[in-house]
Amino acid sequence: MLWQEQSWPRIRELDKRIPVVVPLGSLEQHGPHLPLIVDTLQVTAIAEAAERRLADRVLLLPTLWLGSSHHHLDFPGTVSLLPSLYSQVIESIALSILQAGFRRVVFLNGHGGNKVPVAQALSELVCGSEIAEDAYLALATWWELNPEAFRVGMETPAVSHSCEYETSLVLALRPDLVRMDRARKTPMALDNEWVKTESPQSSRVSIYRRFRRLTAPGSMGSPLSASAEKGNRLLAAVVEELVRFLTDFFQWPELPPLGPDLG
Amino acid sequence: MLWQEQSWPRIRELDKRIPVVVPLGSLEQHGPHLPLIVDTLQVTAIAEAAERRLADRVLLLPTLWLGSSHHHLDFPGTVSLLPSLYSQVIESIALSILQAGFRRVVFLNGHGGNKVPVAQALSELVCGSEIAEDAYLALATWWELNPEAFRVGMETPAVSHSCEYETSLVLALRPDLVRMDRARKTPMALDNEWVKTESPQSSRVSIYRRFRRLTAPGSMGSPLSASAEKGNRLLAAVVEELVRFLTDFFQWPELPPLGPDLG
Amino acid sequence: MLWQEQSWPRIRELDKRIPVVVPLGSLEQHGPHLPLIVDTLQVTAIAEAAERRLADRVLLLPTLWLGSSHHHLDFPGTVSLLPSLYSQVIESIALSILQAGFRRVVFLNGHGGNKVPVAQALSELVCGSEIAEDAYLALATWWELNPEAFRVGMETPAVSHSCEYETSLVLALRPDLVRMDRARKTPMALDNEWVKTESPQSSRVSIYRRFRRLTAPGSMGSPLSASAEKGNRLLAAVVEELVRFLTDFFQWPELPPLGPDLG
Amino acid sequence: MLWQEQSWPRIRELDKRIPVVVPLGSLEQHGPHLPLIVDTLQVTAIAEAAERRLADRVLLLPTLWLGSSHHHLDFPGTVSLLPSLYSQVIESIALSILQAGFRRVVFLNGHGGNKVPVAQALSELVCGSEIAEDAYLALATWWELNPEAFRVGMETPAVSHSCEYETSLVLALRPDLVRMDRARKTPMALDNEWVKTESPQSSRVSIYRRFRRLTAPGSMGSPLSASAEKGNRLLAAVVEELVRFLTDFFQWPELPPLGPDLG
Amino acid sequence: MLWQEQSWPRIRELDKRIPVVVPLGSLEQHGPHLPLIVDTLQVTAIAEAAERRLADRVLLLPTLWLGSSHHHLDFPGTVSLLPSLYSQVIESIALSILQAGFRRVVFLNGHGGNKVPVAQALSELVCGSEIAEDAYLALATWWELNPEAFRVGMETPAVSHSCEYETSLVLALRPDLVRMDRARKTPMALDNEWVKTESPQSSRVSIYRRFRRLTAPGSMGSPLSASAEKGNRLLAAVVEELVRFLTDFFQWPELPPLGPDLG
Amino acid sequence: MLWQEQSWPRIRELDKRIPVVVPLGSLEQHGPHLPLIVDTLQVTAIAEAAERRLADRVLLLPTLWLGSSHHHLDFPGTVSLLPSLYSQVIESIALSILQAGFRRVVFLNGHGGNKVPVAQALSELVCGSEIAEDAYLALATWWELNPEAFRVGMETPAVSHSCEYETSLVLALRPDLVRMDRARKTPMALDNEWVKTESPQSSRVSIYRRFRRLTAPGSMGSPLSASAEKGNRLLAAVVEELVRFLTDFFQWPELPPLGPDLG
Repeated sequence: MLWQEQSWPRIRELDKRIPVVVPLGSLEQHGPHLPLIVDTLQVTAIAEAAERRLADRVLLLPTLWLGSSHHHLDFPGTVSLLPSLYSQVIESIALSILQAGFRRVVFLNGHGGNKVPVAQALSELVCGSEIAEDAYLALATWWELNPEAFRVGMETPAVSHSCEYETSLVLALRPDLVRMDRARKTPMALDNEWVKTESPQSSRVSIYRRFRRLTAPGSMGSPLSASAEKGNRLLAAVVEELVRFLTDFFQWPELPPLGPDLG
Repeated sequence: MLWQEQSWPRIRELDKRIPVVVPLGSLEQHGPHLPLIVDTLQVTAIAEAAERRLADRVLLLPTLWLGSSHHHLDFPGTVSLLPSLYSQVIESIALSILQAGFRRVVFLNGHGGNKVPVAQALSELVCGSEIAEDAYLALATWWELNPEAFRVGMETPAVSHSCEYETSLVLALRPDLVRMDRARKTPMALDNEWVKTESPQSSRVSIYRRFRRLTAPGSMGSPLSASAEKGNRLLAAVVEELVRFLTDFFQWPELPPLGPDLG
Repeated sequence: MLWQEQSWPRIRELDKRIPVVVPLGSLEQHGPHLPLIVDTLQVTAIAEAAERRLADRVLLLPTLWLGSSHHHLDFPGTVSLLPSLYSQVIESIALSILQAGFRRVVFLNGHGGNKVPVAQALSELVCGSEIAEDAYLALATWWELNPEAFRVGMETPAVSHSCEYETSLVLALRPDLVRMDRARKTPMALDNEWVKTESPQSSRVSIYRRFRRLTAPGSMGSPLSASAEKGNRLLAAVVEELVRFLTDFFQWPELPPLGPDLG
Repeated sequence: MLWQEQSWPRIRELDKRIPVVVPLGSLEQHGPHLPLIVDTLQVTAIAEAAERRLADRVLLLPTLWLGSSHHHLDFPGTVSLLPSLYSQVIESIALSILQAGFRRVVFLNGHGGNKVPVAQALSELVCGSEIAEDAYLALATWWELNPEAFRVGMETPAVSHSCEYETSLVLALRPDLVRMDRARKTPMALDNEWVKTESPQSSRVSIYRRFRRLTAPGSMGSPLSASAEKGNRLLAAVVEELVRFLTDFFQWPELPPLGPDLG
Repeated sequence: MLWQEQSWPRIRELDKRIPVVVPLGSLEQHGPHLPLIVDTLQVTAIAEAAERRLADRVLLLPTLWLGSSHHHLDFPGTVSLLPSLYSQVIESIALSILQAGFRRVVFLNGHGGNKVPVAQALSELVCGSEIAEDAYLALATWWELNPEAFRVGMETPAVSHSCEYETSLVLALRPDLVRMDRARKTPMALDNEWVKTESPQSSRVSIYRRFRRLTAPGSMGSPLSASAEKGNRLLAAVVEELVRFLTDFFQWPELPPLGPDLG
Repeated sequence: MLWQEQSWPRIRELDKRIPVVVPLGSLEQHGPHLPLIVDTLQVTAIAEAAERRLADRVLLLPTLWLGSSHHHLDFPGTVSLLPSLYSQVIESIALSILQAGFRRVVFLNGHGGNKVPVAQALSELVCGSEIAEDAYLALATWWELNPEAFRVGMETPAVSHSCEYETSLVLALRPDLVRMDRARKTPMALDNEWVKTESPQSSRVSIYRRFRRLTAPGSMGSPLSASAEKGNRLLAAVVEELVRFLTDFFQWPELPPLGPDLG
């Protein structure tokens, strides 16, 4: 179900265990060959495909296209909130959903820069608010739902930025917005035993830098290896995992307080 | 042009006098007969119609569906930011656009509750930031672009909430989302010489109350007088005014400093 | 009654339906012919005159001379809070009054720049605080109490800044502080079909600019048409309306919750 | 000179070494025998008397009656800002004065609860802002200007709250507002070798408590020993010291940077 | 070198490429068998051992024992900052070090709950401040420096909380503070295909919950498998990796701006 | 007892009237002859000596070395929080201790710059939070516990900064960190009838300035008069007073509400 198409009396009468999904995108530079809207486009396609399969076993909000991309702001066109402000926005959205009575909320994330501020928001919310304590607050970044499955058929090992994966997805979803003639493969300015700029998951140390210190065109990875076919395959695999997760999530048992109560 | 479909090099090369339009909606209760998404639906339809006519003489961002509707939060389904937080979000969007070099920014507003926090944000920005001082920062709420023209053919004098005007627009845009069988006309709990709840423009004093103190169903005005035809006529009239304004706005002269410079 | 002259046991025993009035002024440039204190002087005179007529049917606080005038800060002498900070101050004053048990609070405003931040404060308060939900929180800007009545006998249609209206009032109240030899009439830098700098009420679009972009001397309107007689007449008319409003306000019925209770 | 009676061109042309004085009061409970306005009344009388003697060697702002008195809020009638918010207000006032070009600013304080937040504000300002670094930012609480001189002829050793000193001053300034029949002397709930509730200056440890934990009537000290004559003598002595200080302050040499410059 | 033992002239003359290490601990419940200080104890031992080997090729600050542990606050003894406040503290420490001229800063983290707020702080700093843009800001959590090497000889696969790893380390460092008779192995309340409470690194979805919803005693993992010998071996392995990293880090090349400059 | 060495069940079972002591230091420049850690070193030595004597009649937390020293930041090596941020940190520490059930909390302060922000924090906490209202929140700066006793045998009258007192203490505690050959006695840039830079306690007016405006080397007072013997004597005297105070504090009676209850 689409949250936004319901009336308030309809929202009131729904089963409150239904998972509520909030897709999170961004509006930020994606190199010279992709449009600013990439992350929003991808996560929306994934979320809507899952909603079509789950029907009334999920409640889907519209995608928030405004994300936290300040490390990209040196490239014009990026529209962004600082991490601390984005965290407050996420907290408010979660609170509105909790106030309506739901207790299983998934932020379905489609932009790397959103991960830390969403985690910050949900950590803060669950500790600072009574209404959140008995809720499941989840952060699911789509490419982390099953990385091994997603890299099947790809030349590069992981999603980075405007890379083989992202370019393939946009070729599948909106080929009219891709300028493959402008795509470039560039080496990363920082890549060593400790820090893997293109696959932060496998870094042993985290380094915080603006994007213009890492790449001249604003892209990473191997966009030239992309194809619409790869994009369609990836999209199907991600949707499959998301549907599986949401189906499970609906069934998870409540978690009552176990430890000491200082109340 | 759609901002989100451009790449960063394309944004960089555009004429910086082009007006940039940010449509602002909400996700909030609209009574038992209309969906939560009404304000976003309306302002998006208006903005996209104007963009189709203006082509490369305008840059349109995606609509921000997340607005400031805390006075509606007692009705479930409303997803909202407090006014002070919404102001900060608006300031950040404006700053991102200014940082890209543009100097004519219009927040095209489609929800009454957004007006004060947008005004707060832009007042604060123009005084607290050097980058904003030489910019035109505009707030245009669609129903204020030409109220006299918009009330032609209507039975009620002004837009309020889930009223004749809004119901007509949704009947024109998404009739499948309207439940006319549930529409109700209710008297306002507060309506006197000083305060006109249904037309704040003509109030002499402003009163701040939660919506559940003013109306039981969550709607105002005369939804039963609505029709798709009225909606289509209103939509055309609003788009006409918006196109006229944006065409003018593009031409306004620069405003250099006149008064004392303490710099 | 004057709030400040009571002791705490006296405040405790008063009827809590009595309207509490908080006059809001500013300390900001008013052109070369008027002193910085104009707005505070005017609103204080109005409030005190009403208090003398209403006696124990009103509780009047001292005027807050510190307002939000950052758009005037380029002119030296202006002392101001940013809008967001001023909003927090207003919220705190309202909370103090509510905590004392009163439920009818009027911010009587005498400066245009205060309107948005007071509205922001009261919107935020009524939604974010239980103590405010059952209160009447009012914003009454004096020149909006009855604009048609106030323009009788004037050459210009509305109050702007250091204009015919304001200069007349200072000529009536403190002629020793007026330098008519320095008064100037200047055209506005921005005045067109959409934006009326000198009468924002009739603007169709709002533009946010620092004052030094709009006027070299810091004044607007037609100060040269001012006279003490006009000022006295205006003062009497405003006081009359304010007394009428406060008398009514005291009688307004309570507004109980009508809509859904999520409590 | 009175700041508020000047026009902006007049402020611009003044000698920027002139001390600018901002009197700080409060609106808070002062026991059953004194009105809420005591602190504001006193500091205003002191400041205005000094201004009359110093003429154009001082610039006096209007008294800010809104102070930080949250520890008194349990007694109705108190109107207050939390310390952190009051600090931000003080910082903004100082910044407005610095932006006008002045570099010698005195906050003349008349309420104990204001001391810490003013100190916090000025510490923060001088470290966080370039415009403040070369300024003299002073906090002068009137009863600390010369405590030994002020206690001559008094029965109690120091100013506390609604005490011999304060009651005497109000008897001198506004006897119509004093209800001596209601004055009470009460022992302090906390008074030992380490903490002197009635003379915090001589405490060796500071304890933070709400006023209702310390005194039932809301007053301290010996109000029954007060007289108008004592009040007049005290007033004269304080004004004398303030005039001496401001005369000196005007002459203090600049303090150039001495230590390392990291600039 | 120990930062705190230098004088300011000595800090001024040092080579500014030297890595500056800030160890981050916590003061939080660690189950019934371990003391509150565990994380601080461990990270301090690691940092000091590395400093002894690197001598003047590193600058070590004292450990900040105050961390972000609000999810543990239901267990008494925990002393914590909310994530958002902890982020501001980290930003201030980084700024102080940058202001002294250093450009290679490592936050050596010893508590899981600190990771997100440190990442938030450094993301925010590098985007919002000019002084940080050309710096290397690193977050190194000790158990992520080489997880495979660290699990050699252990029965469980990863560090969690008061587990085999942590109990072993405290047995090695301060055996007098361990009550092995009170150690317990408890199953996790939440553990499935998507969420591994005891090894968040391998979770596919992140869930935010207070600790008392996950474990009754406050510990996780297998503390009963711990031994001092395992602790000593682990300590040596971690120090080895840290020394290797810091030695490399000192040599990394500068990263000049590559992308577009909007400056 | 040391708080950090307890487990959470042990904290839970302790008598909640036991005073909890939080030592507050700094990491800031102390002239060319002393290390950055002076204040932390001193307050830790004092607190630990008292803890050894009081045993289970006190609970001692680890010293917070991070203080508020922004007025020293122009001298490299200083690591500091702005006053407003430091206040929030102190409030959080106090809240954690209150949440564990204790009601007698002493911030034992060892740095002048911490005094105002700690006072601000505790004022704000006691007024804004119900959990703090019935607690004793104390600020004890060590040199104020008994100034007359502490100056016995000293040549100068009071503690200032890197002076006779502080240099003596470091000579007693860590002589290896003192470079007496670099110690300097310098006249204060600001010292007159109203302001005593080296003894703020006896100032009649407070002035806020960065340290580099007051002293070139960063030290004050007479470091050349220092000796280890003076340091040992001072240390013993301070510990004596602190033990006396904590012993008393444990016995103070509860302070129930006396004044009006607005609840």
